[in-house]
Amino acid sequence: MRPHSLSRSKPSTVNANTITSSLLSVETRGTGFTDITREVAKFLREAGAREGAVTLFIRHTSASLTIQENADPSVLQDLTTALNRLAPENAGWVHDAEGPDDMPAHIKTMLTAVSLQVPVLNGEMALGTWQGIYVAEHRARPHRREIVLQFIGSAAQ
Amino acid sequence: MRPHSLSRSKPSTVNANTITSSLLSVETRGTGFTDITREVAKFLREAGAREGAVTLFIRHTSASLTIQENADPSVLQDLTTALNRLAPENAGWVHDAEGPDDMPAHIKTMLTAVSLQVPVLNGEMALGTWQGIYVAEHRARPHRREIVLQFIGSAAQ
Amino acid sequence: MRPHSLSRSKPSTVNANTITSSLLSVETRGTGFTDITREVAKFLREAGAREGAVTLFIRHTSASLTIQENADPSVLQDLTTALNRLAPENAGWVHDAEGPDDMPAHIKTMLTAVSLQVPVLNGEMALGTWQGIYVAEHRARPHRREIVLQFIGSAAQ
Repeated sequence: MRPHSLSRSKPSTVNANTITSSLLSVETRGTGFTDITREVAKFLREAGAREGAVTLFIRHTSASLTIQENADPSVLQDLTTALNRLAPENAGWVHDAEGPDDMPAHIKTMLTAVSLQVPVLNGEMALGTWQGIYVAEHRARPHRREIVLQFIGSAAQ
Repeated sequence: MRPHSLSRSKPSTVNANTITSSLLSVETRGTGFTDITREVAKFLREAGAREGAVTLFIRHTSASLTIQENADPSVLQDLTTALNRLAPENAGWVHDAEGPDDMPAHIKTMLTAVSLQVPVLNGEMALGTWQGIYVAEHRARPHRREIVLQFIGSAAQ
Repeated sequence: MRPHSLSRSKPSTVNANTITSSLLSVETRGTGFTDITREVAKFLREAGAREGAVTLFIRHTSASLTIQENADPSVLQDLTTALNRLAPENAGWVHDAEGPDDMPAHIKTMLTAVSLQVPVLNGEMALGTWQGIYVAEHRARPHRREIVLQFIGSAAQ
């Protein structure tokens, strides 16, 4: 489909010179979504980030990352329902030694994201108004999850 | 599964020195896919991009990004059908204040991509022959969608 | 959901100066997952990678990338089953000129990843203990698949 109309701002360029990394640990409360947007913003402030991009990488195969609406909590509730329908428990999975929620958790991880990248412009993530960054816990019980945060770009001193 | 065979080209290295960013606005025509490949290529030419990667980030939670076949339009038609089957309307969603197409749109966004990264080699995106970059509009009505384009790498003057 | 607790390591910063790229070719054996983790690690050693991130980009629309559990092979078997259920053959697809496995392969590609980014810390990918990087072949027959590997960051001489 041809776009109805397209417009694009004049490209702006800076020198890239720094990479700053940090490990974020999140204790989840079991199945559901944990908003980490503020923590990523705090990391970028500490790093003196100006222009570039922040990469998020989750070091797990039964929890994942997603960017979703941060306004109405019922969206997150419905996303959980949707994932349960797409990857139900007791659906004849071969891998069941770690409990009925384990294989569905791997499938949900495959269908969402293990790595995300968000541009940083003038020191702020270029998120839309309604976008929040979430860790999605797919196991039933609470877990400690590790996310690598990494800024690549230009930084203030 | 062990690969049948693996081969890899000799790594080539350049200095990374620039980050160039631009905001692309796309007016969609409602549900469906809009090809933005040429516009991203134009951005890279304007930026003088040589070696590096271009990141695409969509600033919305009811539209998303995907890289798909650009040859037969019926592929895009079937992808729409597939997403409608995976995230149907009127499926008992709690979040329905914004219309029956809204919650399915969030689910479709979660199942596809909010950020993509395409390597740039010798000034060109390293896309395969049949790969096009698409904005996927998941709402029924037309929307104005914003995509941040960002090149990180080496650039000509 | 508020996180139960959050902690984050002190950010560490280095200078970014190099981009190293390589093309990895993988001959798949037909539908299933091929572990390329070691090959990516080998690429990073050859590149002298220290701190930064490696991007993987697959140049196809009927094969994709995913990071999944590398311990129990039955996980990969169940992931194949799950993808077959989400994108079945003979489900009334319009695009069927290339065989019944072709359109499902495009859908499976859309639901997984075409690009991945893994942080590199102290010369090693920051993968979790159970994470392996896989090429997912979605066509029934063997194919030769190309993946661009690209390291951005600081490198030893």
